[in-house]
Amino acid sequence: MSVSPFDHPILGGLLGDAEVANTFSAATGIKTMLDFEAALAKAEAKAGVITKQAAAEIARAIASFSPDIDRLRAAVAVDGVVVPELVRQLRDAVGSEAARRVHFGATSQDVIDTSLMLRLKPLLAAIETRLQAFIDALAGIEKRDEHRALMARTRMQAAIPINARDRLDAWRQPAKRNLERLRIWSKEGLALQFGGAAGTLDRLGDKAAEVRAALAAELGLIDAPQWHGQRDRLAELASTLSLVTGGLGKFGQDIALMAQAGDEIELAGGGASSTMPHKQNPVAAEVLVTLARFNATQLAGMHGALVHEQERSGAAWTLEWMIFPQMVAATAAATRLAAALAANITRLGAEQ
Amino acid sequence: MSVSPFDHPILGGLLGDAEVANTFSAATGIKTMLDFEAALAKAEAKAGVITKQAAAEIARAIASFSPDIDRLRAAVAVDGVVVPELVRQLRDAVGSEAARRVHFGATSQDVIDTSLMLRLKPLLAAIETRLQAFIDALAGIEKRDEHRALMARTRMQAAIPINARDRLDAWRQPAKRNLERLRIWSKEGLALQFGGAAGTLDRLGDKAAEVRAALAAELGLIDAPQWHGQRDRLAELASTLSLVTGGLGKFGQDIALMAQAGDEIELAGGGASSTMPHKQNPVAAEVLVTLARFNATQLAGMHGALVHEQERSGAAWTLEWMIFPQMVAATAAATRLAAALAANITRLGAEQ
Amino acid sequence: MSVSPFDHPILGGLLGDAEVANTFSAATGIKTMLDFEAALAKAEAKAGVITKQAAAEIARAIASFSPDIDRLRAAVAVDGVVVPELVRQLRDAVGSEAARRVHFGATSQDVIDTSLMLRLKPLLAAIETRLQAFIDALAGIEKRDEHRALMARTRMQAAIPINARDRLDAWRQPAKRNLERLRIWSKEGLALQFGGAAGTLDRLGDKAAEVRAALAAELGLIDAPQWHGQRDRLAELASTLSLVTGGLGKFGQDIALMAQAGDEIELAGGGASSTMPHKQNPVAAEVLVTLARFNATQLAGMHGALVHEQERSGAAWTLEWMIFPQMVAATAAATRLAAALAANITRLGAEQ
Amino acid sequence: MSVSPFDHPILGGLLGDAEVANTFSAATGIKTMLDFEAALAKAEAKAGVITKQAAAEIARAIASFSPDIDRLRAAVAVDGVVVPELVRQLRDAVGSEAARRVHFGATSQDVIDTSLMLRLKPLLAAIETRLQAFIDALAGIEKRDEHRALMARTRMQAAIPINARDRLDAWRQPAKRNLERLRIWSKEGLALQFGGAAGTLDRLGDKAAEVRAALAAELGLIDAPQWHGQRDRLAELASTLSLVTGGLGKFGQDIALMAQAGDEIELAGGGASSTMPHKQNPVAAEVLVTLARFNATQLAGMHGALVHEQERSGAAWTLEWMIFPQMVAATAAATRLAAALAANITRLGAEQ
Repeated sequence: MSVSPFDHPILGGLLGDAEVANTFSAATGIKTMLDFEAALAKAEAKAGVITKQAAAEIARAIASFSPDIDRLRAAVAVDGVVVPELVRQLRDAVGSEAARRVHFGATSQDVIDTSLMLRLKPLLAAIETRLQAFIDALAGIEKRDEHRALMARTRMQAAIPINARDRLDAWRQPAKRNLERLRIWSKEGLALQFGGAAGTLDRLGDKAAEVRAALAAELGLIDAPQWHGQRDRLAELASTLSLVTGGLGKFGQDIALMAQAGDEIELAGGGASSTMPHKQNPVAAEVLVTLARFNATQLAGMHGALVHEQERSGAAWTLEWMIFPQMVAATAAATRLAAALAANITRLGAEQ
Repeated sequence: MSVSPFDHPILGGLLGDAEVANTFSAATGIKTMLDFEAALAKAEAKAGVITKQAAAEIARAIASFSPDIDRLRAAVAVDGVVVPELVRQLRDAVGSEAARRVHFGATSQDVIDTSLMLRLKPLLAAIETRLQAFIDALAGIEKRDEHRALMARTRMQAAIPINARDRLDAWRQPAKRNLERLRIWSKEGLALQFGGAAGTLDRLGDKAAEVRAALAAELGLIDAPQWHGQRDRLAELASTLSLVTGGLGKFGQDIALMAQAGDEIELAGGGASSTMPHKQNPVAAEVLVTLARFNATQLAGMHGALVHEQERSGAAWTLEWMIFPQMVAATAAATRLAAALAANITRLGAEQ
Repeated sequence: MSVSPFDHPILGGLLGDAEVANTFSAATGIKTMLDFEAALAKAEAKAGVITKQAAAEIARAIASFSPDIDRLRAAVAVDGVVVPELVRQLRDAVGSEAARRVHFGATSQDVIDTSLMLRLKPLLAAIETRLQAFIDALAGIEKRDEHRALMARTRMQAAIPINARDRLDAWRQPAKRNLERLRIWSKEGLALQFGGAAGTLDRLGDKAAEVRAALAAELGLIDAPQWHGQRDRLAELASTLSLVTGGLGKFGQDIALMAQAGDEIELAGGGASSTMPHKQNPVAAEVLVTLARFNATQLAGMHGALVHEQERSGAAWTLEWMIFPQMVAATAAATRLAAALAANITRLGAEQ
Repeated sequence: MSVSPFDHPILGGLLGDAEVANTFSAATGIKTMLDFEAALAKAEAKAGVITKQAAAEIARAIASFSPDIDRLRAAVAVDGVVVPELVRQLRDAVGSEAARRVHFGATSQDVIDTSLMLRLKPLLAAIETRLQAFIDALAGIEKRDEHRALMARTRMQAAIPINARDRLDAWRQPAKRNLERLRIWSKEGLALQFGGAAGTLDRLGDKAAEVRAALAAELGLIDAPQWHGQRDRLAELASTLSLVTGGLGKFGQDIALMAQAGDEIELAGGGASSTMPHKQNPVAAEVLVTLARFNATQLAGMHGALVHEQERSGAAWTLEWMIFPQMVAATAAATRLAAALAANITRLGAEQ
């Protein structure tokens, strides 16, 4: 059952993969939200905001806690976010006096945004690995074919002769810059979200900075002031994801055009037609164009969501939920397909 | 496991529903594709293109056919579309000489596009019903509150007094026009897709028109020339869906603003906060704004996909798959939530 | 001086034309706004809302009125809309007691929206004429070349032979449907905007309906209830404009691909290169793709602007001003270029 | 005469300014293109690619050269780009043997892209200055009002008390990060475009690197390999511009909401209504929301244009021309208006 092709039982074969599915599964979502709550209790105990015993009881409860998904689902329909009901269930699981210390000083957005950061961390690393694999595959083609002749084409017309290396460069340079952009973002952008009801950590008094730092350290995220209504880093990452897919879309478009012309490239692994057995469709090349246009489209929504009104916006935030995971999934698919397609280029440039 | 909130095990409680999930499930997808193949065989037998016996054998095979989903999934990763492998499996299931008559004269796009039309038919009807329920709920409010006083607000500033009926009208008129647009489209747009390899029904010779008419009749769709590369009707429907969500987004925005001001509306059923027990968040109102912005964003992609190059485009077509079902799902959610939110308005206008 | 290529002194040669420039000139803007004010006074005098003498004095003043553009420009920077200052100047020009009857019962949005409708009327007619010229040019090609051979291409690969008529049809059918859509919209959508301060025509009492009907008749527009915050008709037109450019973008993309392959088409009138004298760039074909993608992009903004909050929204309305005229201009350019490009096709299909 | 509000004789008062108008004027366009040609001749003479005499003659001709705009306009309609005709006219002006050395080894895209970089340089600096002025104005408010009370609002509902400094921070932090992003881009992104017909500087042989370095130095731009089909840096800047306007849009939305509620802010300089003398419309605040949504919309087009096919794409490149200058203009307007609006906040937070 799926509206989205990324995790459709059948279409997922083309556009999805296990790492993406795992990242955005309900199970991983719950796990990372509970990681936040456990780390919060630990950090607050360390700072003396709650007792060490309360933190221990909360940790113990979380270790064996398995929420009632049906009740979460029913609650999200009313509350618009899963956290109030998840906290309610978790407090029931703790049972004791410590229950009141669960989620102490935090708000729903702290949990959801931090959960996203925790999930992005390994997935961005995987995307970087895939993009590197694409760059490596291009290097392999260059080693083999760099001096083969190609006809440059400008404004859709034959221009003057170039060689395979020239065109490889137009694919590789953006990929390398985008890889660097991803790495910088991963280093600077994976920030804890922690601000409490209105962003002021009002319940923590003069322990706020200490708890936040400890919480970030515990979760392996960057310690930064809350960004409830400051979505520029997320929109910046969305832009970078779209730069990645855009660059790979240009690669895909070039391959599809070469495959049509027919004599300048040799590709393994084309797709079958239901009516024409002679055809070898350059499916991955086309899908790279699709994913570039998909992310370019979505980017407008992510930047529109920069207009988060007041302290926390339900409308703009929910829009991010609808768009951002798909942009990540599209980028994961594009980097995977691009690396595979590059590896399927058995000859680039004219036969000699 | 879900990238998309529409069918997420938890978030689906807010944004999804059973009718949408069923429409876009893999099971319904396969069922409607097989409906196409069965109806095709029947229509071709009627026109004498294949034998009545072949059609009977195909029908019999389809009746008990259950495809191997794993192999479909693996094949779609290579072919970019499920149909070649589905047809292969179905031919194996038929077994006899008739196997060669399965899918005779058709192409993958015929199957996929027609399957979409078959699935849209009941879902558009459901969306129309929901939009009517919204209109009816507004009528109920009007009956109760029409003379209550409101302050008109223009450019975010208090202007002059109006009454509840004036504002109700600004929500109802677009809804009524959009309902009419949906009805017209349903009547004129739900067209069979049937063109064969290159849109010319080349395998059917002078029986082409007869088979197409019979096939359309069998499936309860409009008989029309193939539209493989002519996507205007689909983009037009996408526009209409966005008009629907846009109108309801204005309603949601107005409700959210009134709920903030606090004295001109009384709402039942607000959402809970994880930190502030006193709050009643107007979740449905905010989500209506979200869904309007979501569909507006997606619309750019659907219209970008109008540039279907040549006879059939893999790149543009796949982009439709990624976007269009979500636009339908967003519209189904918005109409459902708007009707519910309108029913939750227990007072519109100042107390008297 | 121009940020936009439509009216750039140089680039305007490619993307602009006199009809568009005239439609959106400041002079035409002022003229149509004054047309509104003159017709309003006339209609109100007819209904007895103001005296016939006042209407005559207003008409006389308008006949020789030439606003101070610099003061309009300065005022719009503060007011966000030109009407308050325009009315101020016009009242000064009237001078007498009748000055107070200028703009009586109307609001800025009435003037601006109606002015747009008055300007759209002839320009939509021009666009329809251009689109018809494109359809006619295709008919001419068909008459000459219909049986010439083409290779169908699906998923960017050679498929099976078709003939020129098959491909012509894929360009013509959407154009014909879009022409019909434009005609229907022109007939039903060119509606007067007239609602007064908050949409209720509060100043006109029981004469409201009579004045509105007379005003619409005077201006040659459809009489309809005010649509200050109901932007669905405008967004619907934007969608239709994008359907037009999308269909022509597919035509342009196909031509560009054929021009690259080289043997299936012969084109007159290609563009020059600054470095390669041998090249004939298919500039118009490429620009049609550009315009399709431009309008598809803008459409997201127009549909986003459906969320007009409360009685009248400054934010959403101003967004329309920034986007909508450009969509019209892009459509005017695309229909003009498509008709010219079709006329430049000297052979479609292989030589025989 | 204007389709775009940025340089409309009247609306330009709200959305345009002299620096933007000058940057994108035809005169500045021609000047910077001629700067490129003059610097190219000088750099090529220095490297011994052309004679010093030829360079001197070219420089002399350029010094007094004034192109025939009408012929440029007519040529662009055919060639799709102004450079071939500009070079033709310039060669006529040179007259001598040296005429053949004008534009030697360069292509149209080198001239146009470099001209854009030359024009962006001062305009980005101006935008940075305006954004700094906004940040400074916030600092002024903070100094005066930091301890005044505000009600935090989350999900459009009153939450808990905060103070003015908390909300100021949510406006200032993104602005500061965006200023830093702009500065980094200006330092790394303002790169010369120089690749010749197909990006290989084929006419310059082993002098290519030397000429390119000298040309970059002469023009005050970064020396970098050609980026004809590698548009990631431009799309990255577009993203940053949209981050700027998005952050200011959030500021504008917050101000508009506060102005509506009425008691937590005091604003000078609101706009007038044509019907309601008592109103003070928060025009600048609304327009900031508009500009944020405008740029978010456009960004989809700029990222879609990343799919530059082959060595140089007419379709994708022309799309950039239609969108990018407007994004810059919108950002210039937003930074200007935000600084002015912040300066008009005479009180932030409740009266004490």
